[in-house]
Amino acid sequence: MKPIAATALALALSSLLSGAQAEEKPAPPKKPVTMADILAASSAADWRPLDPQNTLYLELASGRVVIELSPGYAPLHVDNIRTLAKQGYYDGLAIVRSQDNYVVQWADPNDDEKTPEKAKPLGGAKAQLPSEYTVPISDATPFTRLRDADGYAPQVGFAQGMPAGRDPKANQTWLTHCYGALGVARGNDPLSGSGTSLYVIIGHAPRQLDRNINVAGRVVQGMEKLSILPRGTGPLGFYEKPEQYVPITSIKLAADVPESERTRIEVLRTDTATWDALVASRRNRKDDWYQVPAGHVELCNVPIPVRPIDAAKPAIAK
Amino acid sequence: MKPIAATALALALSSLLSGAQAEEKPAPPKKPVTMADILAASSAADWRPLDPQNTLYLELASGRVVIELSPGYAPLHVDNIRTLAKQGYYDGLAIVRSQDNYVVQWADPNDDEKTPEKAKPLGGAKAQLPSEYTVPISDATPFTRLRDADGYAPQVGFAQGMPAGRDPKANQTWLTHCYGALGVARGNDPLSGSGTSLYVIIGHAPRQLDRNINVAGRVVQGMEKLSILPRGTGPLGFYEKPEQYVPITSIKLAADVPESERTRIEVLRTDTATWDALVASRRNRKDDWYQVPAGHVELCNVPIPVRPIDAAKPAIAK
Repeated sequence: MKPIAATALALALSSLLSGAQAEEKPAPPKKPVTMADILAASSAADWRPLDPQNTLYLELASGRVVIELSPGYAPLHVDNIRTLAKQGYYDGLAIVRSQDNYVVQWADPNDDEKTPEKAKPLGGAKAQLPSEYTVPISDATPFTRLRDADGYAPQVGFAQGMPAGRDPKANQTWLTHCYGALGVARGNDPLSGSGTSLYVIIGHAPRQLDRNINVAGRVVQGMEKLSILPRGTGPLGFYEKPEQYVPITSIKLAADVPESERTRIEVLRTDTATWDALVASRRNRKDDWYQVPAGHVELCNVPIPVRPIDAAKPAIAK
Repeated sequence: MKPIAATALALALSSLLSGAQAEEKPAPPKKPVTMADILAASSAADWRPLDPQNTLYLELASGRVVIELSPGYAPLHVDNIRTLAKQGYYDGLAIVRSQDNYVVQWADPNDDEKTPEKAKPLGGAKAQLPSEYTVPISDATPFTRLRDADGYAPQVGFAQGMPAGRDPKANQTWLTHCYGALGVARGNDPLSGSGTSLYVIIGHAPRQLDRNINVAGRVVQGMEKLSILPRGTGPLGFYEKPEQYVPITSIKLAADVPESERTRIEVLRTDTATWDALVASRRNRKDDWYQVPAGHVELCNVPIPVRPIDAAKPAIAK
């Protein structure tokens, strides 16, 4: 028994591409179009590769987490994160926090007021950056609007595969804290974040963080390696003992990894007719299981499919 | 470095209870009121115990998960689940599914079309029940409305500690699929759910399920024992091999557990002035960390605090 039944991919072509045949024999009752149908009928142009200069590989003992960076939305922070990754700053650090229904976070465990002399040197990276909680709307911040209302932002939509908010009156746009968002941890001082400590959202979207902290990207593959980490038992889900830390083997820019060792995946574009159809199919779920289509889809409930390059089937769909 | 800084409980009384003293010396600048302040100033009457007849203890090797049932919203299903629990039906079953950002689900692994003769007998429980996806609004469905707009329901709010939706025109109300919701799995036949297989939401609220499946309760303590289970690698996150199943020691009604072995916790009431203050504090987060209050709080983003009975401090707060 399943709360959601899989929709057979086999139905895809019959419902989408039934032009000629339909005139020859009586048409069967039309099957509603599901996301699986739409992905099966997508063209190569509906997908985009990841730019190796904007892709991080977070390597854990359990495998690789693939993160896409968002230079259009946090240019200074993305640049600093790239610099840190190129220097090997993150290699050997650890995930130090896992708070249920909220975040995992990594940092240099020695970057502490008590042991500043043990902290890893920043090298060419900056220790402090101006905030980029919002940026002006520009060509660097493309936006496919989601027509559905949102309580946290005047407008929401998708910016090159990342969920985003927008306030045209204030000429501001920002990435939102949906599941998988990569953020730049900071203390109470709004200037204190630099990218040395990063976090990923592992629970229900804490949208109240939007515009209060820098989102610098999004996990596109491997979330399940972060979301299942044992929760920390200290305040805010910090691990209480160093032996509980989850070691980070390395975080490298994909461009600095030999091509043969890169993860060959592509992401569905969010500015195409296929994308619009996908969103519509999620707004009103119609398949053999659903009884009452919602007539609404929330920003963080729209899945952004990823698949192996050259493969016909989507890697992520539910 | 932390994306959210803890607010000192120490500030609580100074901001809430500063009546008399304030006239004697110049008042210090007022600190904004946080959830921690509100909980610290709450009275015993703001909290309610769990009814042992409506409480399930799911026992795993890792410990106990405490679930509150919702007889007002799914009376037939809650009754059937109680019957199953009393018979020991769930004891020795397993969690058979863990799908990232979605659900964990348990079932009788032998309750399968291939091996119907091996399925555990239902005894006095029913194999099929009419759907209770929505129920008429009545005295059994109390509702404290949340004023914030919601895309999935005409009205949302809280029903005895559970997030709920409501459509007054249709005279319908239902529990919503927020993090921790307990649901009754079903196949494509709307009648097929009975409570033998149950699921818990472990990711961003899949609100499209609302009104399509029975919600029968909510996890009030121990979510971290479910949310960290390794994800299944089969379709829909089902485990592919029996050795991957997570054994369920037992699921018992708290009333059937000796009083000395019950979990002594209480839940913040959701129909008090203290609750209203808590919601307001979450709508506009004002503390030393937040720069821009959201001015909005989404239904599934309002935490419902739980604490040990007799203790002064909340057990859950973030």
